[in-house]
Amino acid sequence: MPRPLDTLIYNGTVVTVDSAFSILKDGYIGIRDGRIVQMASRPGDIPLPAAAETVDADHGIVLPGLINAHTHLPMSLFRGLADDLPLQVWLNEHIFPAEAAHISPESVRLGTLLSCAELLLSGTTTCCDGYFLEDRVAQAVLSAGLRARLGQGVIDYPAPGVPDPRENVSHAAEFGDRWRNVDPRLQPSIFAHSPYTCSGETLKAAKRAASDRGLLFQIHVAETRHELRRIRSDTNETPVAYLDRLGLLDPYTLMVHGVWLDESDLSILSKRDVKMVHCPESNMKLGSGIAPVPQWMAHGLTVGIGTDGCASNNNLDLFKEMDMAAKLHKAHSGDPTVMDAATVLKMATIDGARAIGLESEIGSIEIGKQADLIIVDVSEPHLFPLYNPISHIVYSASGSDIRDVMVSGKFLVRNRQLTTIDIDDVMDRTNALAKEIRQILRQRPRQAGPSTTLRLGQPNN
Amino acid sequence: MPRPLDTLIYNGTVVTVDSAFSILKDGYIGIRDGRIVQMASRPGDIPLPAAAETVDADHGIVLPGLINAHTHLPMSLFRGLADDLPLQVWLNEHIFPAEAAHISPESVRLGTLLSCAELLLSGTTTCCDGYFLEDRVAQAVLSAGLRARLGQGVIDYPAPGVPDPRENVSHAAEFGDRWRNVDPRLQPSIFAHSPYTCSGETLKAAKRAASDRGLLFQIHVAETRHELRRIRSDTNETPVAYLDRLGLLDPYTLMVHGVWLDESDLSILSKRDVKMVHCPESNMKLGSGIAPVPQWMAHGLTVGIGTDGCASNNNLDLFKEMDMAAKLHKAHSGDPTVMDAATVLKMATIDGARAIGLESEIGSIEIGKQADLIIVDVSEPHLFPLYNPISHIVYSASGSDIRDVMVSGKFLVRNRQLTTIDIDDVMDRTNALAKEIRQILRQRPRQAGPSTTLRLGQPNN
Repeated sequence: MPRPLDTLIYNGTVVTVDSAFSILKDGYIGIRDGRIVQMASRPGDIPLPAAAETVDADHGIVLPGLINAHTHLPMSLFRGLADDLPLQVWLNEHIFPAEAAHISPESVRLGTLLSCAELLLSGTTTCCDGYFLEDRVAQAVLSAGLRARLGQGVIDYPAPGVPDPRENVSHAAEFGDRWRNVDPRLQPSIFAHSPYTCSGETLKAAKRAASDRGLLFQIHVAETRHELRRIRSDTNETPVAYLDRLGLLDPYTLMVHGVWLDESDLSILSKRDVKMVHCPESNMKLGSGIAPVPQWMAHGLTVGIGTDGCASNNNLDLFKEMDMAAKLHKAHSGDPTVMDAATVLKMATIDGARAIGLESEIGSIEIGKQADLIIVDVSEPHLFPLYNPISHIVYSASGSDIRDVMVSGKFLVRNRQLTTIDIDDVMDRTNALAKEIRQILRQRPRQAGPSTTLRLGQPNN
Repeated sequence: MPRPLDTLIYNGTVVTVDSAFSILKDGYIGIRDGRIVQMASRPGDIPLPAAAETVDADHGIVLPGLINAHTHLPMSLFRGLADDLPLQVWLNEHIFPAEAAHISPESVRLGTLLSCAELLLSGTTTCCDGYFLEDRVAQAVLSAGLRARLGQGVIDYPAPGVPDPRENVSHAAEFGDRWRNVDPRLQPSIFAHSPYTCSGETLKAAKRAASDRGLLFQIHVAETRHELRRIRSDTNETPVAYLDRLGLLDPYTLMVHGVWLDESDLSILSKRDVKMVHCPESNMKLGSGIAPVPQWMAHGLTVGIGTDGCASNNNLDLFKEMDMAAKLHKAHSGDPTVMDAATVLKMATIDGARAIGLESEIGSIEIGKQADLIIVDVSEPHLFPLYNPISHIVYSASGSDIRDVMVSGKFLVRNRQLTTIDIDDVMDRTNALAKEIRQILRQRPRQAGPSTTLRLGQPNN
């Protein structure tokens, strides 16, 4: 007789997001040693398997934990600091000065924990991050219990923790070496900021450092029309053709944004099996444009979804991001059948897992996979009546409908309460920092001027 | 000495949405006989005025209750019934058959109460509705305690409660007469469905019935490209020019959607001071197009925001709708400065009030106005830190952040609990109906066929 389960979740509508998109009505999931070992519909009232801990999903929807394929965790510190501005003004007059003045190991830790709290409370169990002082991000993520791909940033300007840009790639490589075998939940990565803020030499060196270590290589590409024009003017190539010539494009490259792509770019990306991340809310809010995601998919590309950093969104709720992605492309194309709810849910689960190379472990509810699970409470009026759980997830629910969140079989949110993060302490400490930031805002009311340490060129639209 | 206040709300950031867009830090609001009679910032710890009931906003944001300027309340019954379909398939194969089979006085009552619960819990205190069997809508809204403009539908097809279309206008006029002086919170209206489902004679008669009674006249106009083509083909005019020729356009006409408008249409609408409602999520989800709202505003038009019915959204959360409106037009125009957060918040408050003719009573927090107020809880991680309350309302909050909701000084939601709606009873009763609808869904799997009683022509995109 097998030993009892560690945890049994029952009485839920289990949306597996497996290859058949199976939905188990009145389903249960058995978990042992952090993995899914049993799952089935329960016909009638047959006895449930024995388990040390039994969790009634109370007719809720059980989903694979959501995957945020692109974010900058510490930037929750700057949520709502400046909005409705051209990217150049937003970056140069608000975000960069705030980063220059306030990004430190401790603020990175606090911002990361604040973001982890928001991610968990809204049902995200895995994120793919890129920032600076990434060791502090890693420590905070580990303590919060999320699963993550974390990329140390590479940029050809002085950056927090990397005062000398000549050391940017070696910093990132060392980060990769340090974190490669620390914890199975945490995978290091290298995050090159963009083709307009890194030289060709830097990009090649960063990609080589990633490839040598078997690490995912993340990069923002073709985000704005300005970037497209600038790369064209420098190289006579599109950003994608330029990166392809540098040898940067392969299945372990994660390309973020991809707003300004033409058919020839898409053919290159498809041939190289580059992984894509769509950040609709950030692209919309900054007026960057509308990424041709239905065309990405028509070219067979793997597509995850990301919130981007909190400062350009201004939240980390993947439910809102799914709703936005589904509706944006219908509006843009005039075709209400594009980006249907199931396609969008896959972007936030199994396709996001594929994009960041974790599809054998997460992204769907299947026997043998990690027990990264979330339970959506469907008892509120806005989720009633329930004809189709996929529709509700994409079009009606929001992050606040999440009741429970589990990573590797461990509850990180139980009955809407965080179990691993002392959020009151994080918010108290962040408040002191926010006060300083407000002070500076008052002293510098929309006044243009160069930032002190970090300047990513002069992007605009 | 004045008699004490009925209610005092204190310790909140009061976003008044008055003409100066004043924000009262550590503000308080005194309420007597359902109206705002005092308001101020509280410098230091000065004593507060005496009140029978004292409510600590706990550093939350206090806003005027939100105004949903266009919805179809009973349609929450069909939330998520069918998505990702062309409008024609969605209407003719799913929504119309469901309405024909399931719309009855009792189902209208239940759907309305379900929607009122969702509206209140997400911070909406006033809605402008259009449907059939509107007497039942009115009774349900009155019992729930919301403020509303309610329009009995007019359409040249048999409709629930109006089997003979020749009686459509007289039904609507009688509805207006019946409800004109019943309750100050409830204002009747006449809702003509559209220029493609009502003849010119019907439209003129419906507008005359509204004008004779001093009632708001609501109408869907220029929602789809198909409608534009059809009216052009029938009349050689745009829908707006056609309605203008019929004499339908004046300051008491509320035009919903307005996706397909040209410059000449906008000039007409501006000259006639027609009021506009933008329903971004519905337009996006149905692939109808993107209404030129920044151009509406450039022409000086008054613009409210609406969710449309639940079946094409699929929620009634105006926070999501604000976020969508702000981002959609930035993406579409490539200009991140359009539809800034303050503009969008005004659409959901004072401009919505102007659109439906209630700006002297609601839409802002000012002395003498109705105490229609909501308190946003900002203690959760996703609303932290707080630099700018307007930014948080539009870009970070969602309906689930609402703690308290008051209409005319009476709490309809207190500590997230409904005080006037027995939601368990509503959900129990709706469940029985939803079971029948599911049954029919199973019997009619995407099978095309004419609906039995209600058919609004063959709109498509």
